[in-house]
Amino acid sequence: MVKRYLDVVSLQEVFDIMTAEFTPAPSVREVPLEESVGCISAGPVFARYSVPEIHLSAMDGIAVRSADTIGASEQRPVTLPEAVRVNTGNIVPPGFDAVIMIEDVRVDGDRFTIRKPTAPWQHVRPAGEDIAESEMVIPGRHRIRPHEVGALATYGITSLPVFSVRAGIIPTGSELVPHGIKPAPGQVVESNTVMAAAWLESLGVQCTRYQITPDEPDLIRDAIARAVEDNDMAIVSAGSSAGTRDFTADIIAELGEVLVHGVAIKPGKPVIIGKVGGKPVIGMPGYPLSALTVLREIITPLVARYGLALPDQVLQRARLTSTLHSDAGSDEFVLLSVGKIGGKWVASPQSRGSGVQMSGVRANAYLRIPRPVEGFEAGEEVDTNLMVSRSEAGEALLLTGSHDPVLDYLATMVRSGGVDIHSTHTGSMGGLISLKKQDCHAAPMHLLADDGDYNIPYLSRYLPGERITLICVAGREQGIVSVSGDIGIDDLPAHRFVNRQKGSGTRLLLDYELKKRGTDVSRIEGYNRELTTHIGVALAVKSGEADAGMCVYSAAKALSLPFQPVAQERYELAVRTEHMDDPRIMALLDTIRSEEFIRVLQDLGGYDSRETGVQRELP
Amino acid sequence: MVKRYLDVVSLQEVFDIMTAEFTPAPSVREVPLEESVGCISAGPVFARYSVPEIHLSAMDGIAVRSADTIGASEQRPVTLPEAVRVNTGNIVPPGFDAVIMIEDVRVDGDRFTIRKPTAPWQHVRPAGEDIAESEMVIPGRHRIRPHEVGALATYGITSLPVFSVRAGIIPTGSELVPHGIKPAPGQVVESNTVMAAAWLESLGVQCTRYQITPDEPDLIRDAIARAVEDNDMAIVSAGSSAGTRDFTADIIAELGEVLVHGVAIKPGKPVIIGKVGGKPVIGMPGYPLSALTVLREIITPLVARYGLALPDQVLQRARLTSTLHSDAGSDEFVLLSVGKIGGKWVASPQSRGSGVQMSGVRANAYLRIPRPVEGFEAGEEVDTNLMVSRSEAGEALLLTGSHDPVLDYLATMVRSGGVDIHSTHTGSMGGLISLKKQDCHAAPMHLLADDGDYNIPYLSRYLPGERITLICVAGREQGIVSVSGDIGIDDLPAHRFVNRQKGSGTRLLLDYELKKRGTDVSRIEGYNRELTTHIGVALAVKSGEADAGMCVYSAAKALSLPFQPVAQERYELAVRTEHMDDPRIMALLDTIRSEEFIRVLQDLGGYDSRETGVQRELP
Repeated sequence: MVKRYLDVVSLQEVFDIMTAEFTPAPSVREVPLEESVGCISAGPVFARYSVPEIHLSAMDGIAVRSADTIGASEQRPVTLPEAVRVNTGNIVPPGFDAVIMIEDVRVDGDRFTIRKPTAPWQHVRPAGEDIAESEMVIPGRHRIRPHEVGALATYGITSLPVFSVRAGIIPTGSELVPHGIKPAPGQVVESNTVMAAAWLESLGVQCTRYQITPDEPDLIRDAIARAVEDNDMAIVSAGSSAGTRDFTADIIAELGEVLVHGVAIKPGKPVIIGKVGGKPVIGMPGYPLSALTVLREIITPLVARYGLALPDQVLQRARLTSTLHSDAGSDEFVLLSVGKIGGKWVASPQSRGSGVQMSGVRANAYLRIPRPVEGFEAGEEVDTNLMVSRSEAGEALLLTGSHDPVLDYLATMVRSGGVDIHSTHTGSMGGLISLKKQDCHAAPMHLLADDGDYNIPYLSRYLPGERITLICVAGREQGIVSVSGDIGIDDLPAHRFVNRQKGSGTRLLLDYELKKRGTDVSRIEGYNRELTTHIGVALAVKSGEADAGMCVYSAAKALSLPFQPVAQERYELAVRTEHMDDPRIMALLDTIRSEEFIRVLQDLGGYDSRETGVQRELP
Repeated sequence: MVKRYLDVVSLQEVFDIMTAEFTPAPSVREVPLEESVGCISAGPVFARYSVPEIHLSAMDGIAVRSADTIGASEQRPVTLPEAVRVNTGNIVPPGFDAVIMIEDVRVDGDRFTIRKPTAPWQHVRPAGEDIAESEMVIPGRHRIRPHEVGALATYGITSLPVFSVRAGIIPTGSELVPHGIKPAPGQVVESNTVMAAAWLESLGVQCTRYQITPDEPDLIRDAIARAVEDNDMAIVSAGSSAGTRDFTADIIAELGEVLVHGVAIKPGKPVIIGKVGGKPVIGMPGYPLSALTVLREIITPLVARYGLALPDQVLQRARLTSTLHSDAGSDEFVLLSVGKIGGKWVASPQSRGSGVQMSGVRANAYLRIPRPVEGFEAGEEVDTNLMVSRSEAGEALLLTGSHDPVLDYLATMVRSGGVDIHSTHTGSMGGLISLKKQDCHAAPMHLLADDGDYNIPYLSRYLPGERITLICVAGREQGIVSVSGDIGIDDLPAHRFVNRQKGSGTRLLLDYELKKRGTDVSRIEGYNRELTTHIGVALAVKSGEADAGMCVYSAAKALSLPFQPVAQERYELAVRTEHMDDPRIMALLDTIRSEEFIRVLQDLGGYDSRETGVQRELP
C-alpha cells in the first residue's frame, strides 16, 4: 500500500485549523511560591493581610498628637504633654497621628519640646500604604517575575495556583536507542524527544517522555492513547512521513482525526496535526532539524494558546553572504551564523541538510524565506531571527576558511573575554574569497605557493593592494594517516587514498609534494574522493573506507591513528588590517599569544609554536 | 556610637572596585544533560562518536558500485552485477560507494537495471557528515540552548560540567518572621532573601537561603563566616544602614574588608561591598525596592563576571507623563508603567516610596536618571528599560483614574485576549486630566455634577469639543462603612470620619449628599483626613483609626464590615472615541459585556449591571 500525504497546507492554514479545532483548557497546579518564577498565575492573587497592618513611623523621631503641636513656634516653643520616641518602622501607638523628626525636637529626659507645628499624619506610613488586605496583587494569566516573589511573600502568599500545560512525548522507531547507549550500526540515538522536552520545558510546559516504542502499530496506538489520557497534548516523534513503516497518521485517524498531514515548510514537511479526545496530537518528523522547525513554528504557537508567555523574537537585519534558492510553494527556514563586521551585520547560511544537527548548534540565527518568495540573492538585506541575545550575536567573531582543531580550543579561551567564535569550514580558498567579500572577520589559511611561501602570494593575487594582516597560529605538521602506519607519501599509488576538496591548503600541499616527487596523481586510487575536514579524512581511514589520507597530526592523534609526517606548513589567520583594533580581534590575538595557548599546542602535539602570534602585513 | 557611611561612591566606581578586587573562580558541577538548558559549559564538549558512524543512504533506492554504472544510457541500459535495496537511513554496505534513487531503477526481482551512470558517493551520507568522533560540539563558557540538548544526546553526551555560582543569602533582623507566618504588630515578613534567591536562580545562580539571624553581632558573624565558606559569594540582607542596630559593615570589616559602604544610587544607597577570604560579601539594604535595585544594578553585574550569561536589556523610548526631579549626585531608578497609546509609547512613573513593594509588581519598566542629570520634564522622551518583553509591554492597557475592585477582575479576564491592564489609582479627576494629556488609554470615573448627571458635564468642561466615548462598567452603591454598622450619613458629625482625597468621585458624592442635607462639613472630625482608595478607608475603619468612612460596598464586604447605602452612582470608563477600535479596547468592551463579568458583579454585590456595557458619546 502506498500512503499519501493529505493535501499539504500552508503554515497560516495550520494556525487557522489549530485555532478552530482546539479550545485550550490548561490544567492548574499549586506551586510553592519559591518555584513560581516564570509560571502563569491561574487566577488573581489577593493580599492576605495589609502592609503595613498598622501605622508605622517613616522617620526616627517622636510620635505625637498633631493637635498638641498647634501654635508652636520659635518664639513660643511647646513642650508636649504626651509623646513617644519612635524609630523608622516602629509602630505609631494608638492615639498618636504624626511623627516629628528627631532633629526637630529638643529632648530633655522624657520631655520633648518643639518649635513648629506638625500636620496630621506627617511622617506616618499609614496602614495599607503598600497594600490592603483583599486587594489584588497580580491578576490571573500573569507571568510571575522574580521580584514579585518577594512582594507575594510579604503579602502572605506561600503557594499559588498556576497554569500547567502537560505534554506527553512519545519516541517511536525500532532503530532507536536511548541516549547514553552507543548505537550499533543501523541504530540511531533517540534525541528528538530529549530536545522537544528541553525546548518545551523552557517555555514552562510539563513534559513526560515515554519509553521508546518500536514500529508496531498496536504499541504505538496504546502509547498515544495513554499520552492523550495523561496530558493536555501528545507529541509523537517520527513515523509521520508517508513511508511503509510510518504508522502515526493511520493510528491518529483510528483514535480520532487527522486534521493536517503535510505542511508546506522546509525542513519539517511531514508533520501531522491530529485531534484525539479533543486534544492536539502532533506527529513530529524524524530528522532533527525538521523536528526543531516543527517545534519552533507549530508546537510553540500551539503551546502559547494555553496561556504560556513566549519570549520575544529578536529580529536583526543583515546582509546575506550567499544566494539562497527556495521553493516558492513552501516557507523555508535556513540556519545562519550572523555577526557584525565593521559595524555591519552579515548572515552566512549553514548547511541545509536536515540530518546535520551541528548546523543548529553552530547557528545563532535563522531566516524565514516566506512562501511566495523564490529565495534571496547574495548581498540582499534580510530579516534574521536571532537564536541568542542581540548582544551575544553582536559578539560573534566569524572565522571562515581552513579548519584546525586548535580553533576549537581558541573558541573556548576567548569566551571569557566575551567573544563568540563561529567557524565555517570552507577550506583555505573559501576563506580567502570570504575575506575578499567582507563576509568574515578572519580567514584561517595555509595556502602553499610555488615559491614555497604561504598565503601572501595568494592574498596578493586575489586581494591586490588591500591591507591584510596575517597572524601566525602555529607551524603545523601535515602527514599521511593510515591504520597500519607504514604508508608514506611515496606509497600512495599502491593504496586506496581519500583526498581533501579543491581549494583546501592540504590538497595544495599534497599536490606540491607529489609534483616535487614526480608522482602522477592519476595513479592514485581515490585521488578524486573529496572530504572537507582533517578529522573526516582520519575517520575514513579508521573506518576502512580508505587506506590512507593526508591530515594534520592532531586529527590522527584524536582517532589514535599512526601518522607519517610530510611537511610543516604555516597556519595563519588573515584579517583586514583595519579590523586589527576590533576588540574581538585584539582578544583573539592576546589569546593566541598567551602561555595557556602555547601549552594547548604542545599538549595536542604536531604544532610548532615558535612563530605563534607573529604578524605579517600586506602589502 | 554614631556610625557613618564610608565615602559614598558612584555606580561606575563600584564596577571598577569589583573588577579590581574580585577574580571570579566559579565552581564546576556535573549536570545531567536534560537539566543543562541555560547552564554555561565549564569546558569544551567533544563528540564521543561520529554521526553517522558509517555511510548511510540518503535516499530510498539501491546501493551500487559507481564503477559498475559507467556507460549506462537510455540506449544502453545496464543491469548491475551487484546492488542492494536500501531505504533512507540504511547502511550503505562495505564495497558500495553510491545510491541510485529507486525512481531511476527498473526492478525485476533482484535484478536492477539503470539508464544513466552515477557519480561516486552520490546520495550517500558519509560517516562523520554531521560530526566526527573527537570534534568539538560546544566550546567552554557556552550557554546551552534547548535544541542543543538534542545534538549533545546524539553525540553521546549524557551529562556535562557546567559553571556553578553559589550564593549564600542571610536574612538578618530581630523583627523578621519567615514568610507564611502572619507578622505580629512590629514584625515584618522576611521577603528580600526570597526575592534575591528567585532573582539569582533565574540567572542560573545556585542559592542557599540561611535561617533568619537576629540582630546579634556574634550570630551574624558566624552566619557570614559560614556562608562565605560554603559559597562563592555571600549576601547579607539588611543591617547595612548606619543605624545603631546595623552591624553588618563592622562584622565584614572584622572578618575581612569593607570596600564600599554607601553607593550613590536611589533607592539602594546603604549597600555594602565587602571581601572576606577573597570572596564578595554584599550587604543588601532592607527596603524591598532598595534591595531590588541593588540586586539588579550591582549583584547582577557581579554574577555576570562569573561567566553566567545575562538576558539582554530591552530599551524602549517613551514620553514621560510627569516630571521627575532627581538628586544630581545619584543615579536614580524610577519604576514605570509603560504602554503604547495611539502608536506612541508613554511612561508613567510609579510611587517612589521604597517600602511600596506593589510598585515593583505594577511596573513593567524602569528609568535610570543618570548621576549628573537633575531629572526629566513631563513630555520628554526617555529611554526606559523594559521589565517584560517588548510585545507584552506593547499590550499594556493603561487605566488611570478611580479604582474599583472589579477592575482587578477585568484585568484577569482580558489577559486571555492578550491585554495587560495597568491601573493607576489617582481618583476620577486625576484620570480625567490623564485622558486629556493622552497619558492613558481609558479613565475610570464617577464624577457627579450638580445637575445629578455623571462624568459628561466634567468631560465637556475639561475636554471641550473632544470626542469621548463613555462605557458603563456598572451602577455602584456607595455608603458608610463602620464597625458597628449603625452609622449612616446623617450620623457623621457625631463620629471620627476618614475621607477620600479631593478630586475623587467618592468625595464629590459625599459633598453632594451632605450639601443636600445641609450638613456643615467643619463639624465632621476627620473630614480633612484623606485616603486614596476604598479599601484604605475600610481598613482605617476596621483598625479603629476612624469610626466611619465612605466607600463602595465591595470594599466593606472584602473586610467583612457593615455598610449603610447612601447612593447609587454611575461608574464609567472614558475612552477617546478614536481609540474605540484599538483591539485592546475592543477586548475590554467585549469582556465588560460578557456574561462572565455580569456574574462577577453579582457575586461581589453592591453593583447594578443593568447599564453595564452601555456606551454614551461626546460631544
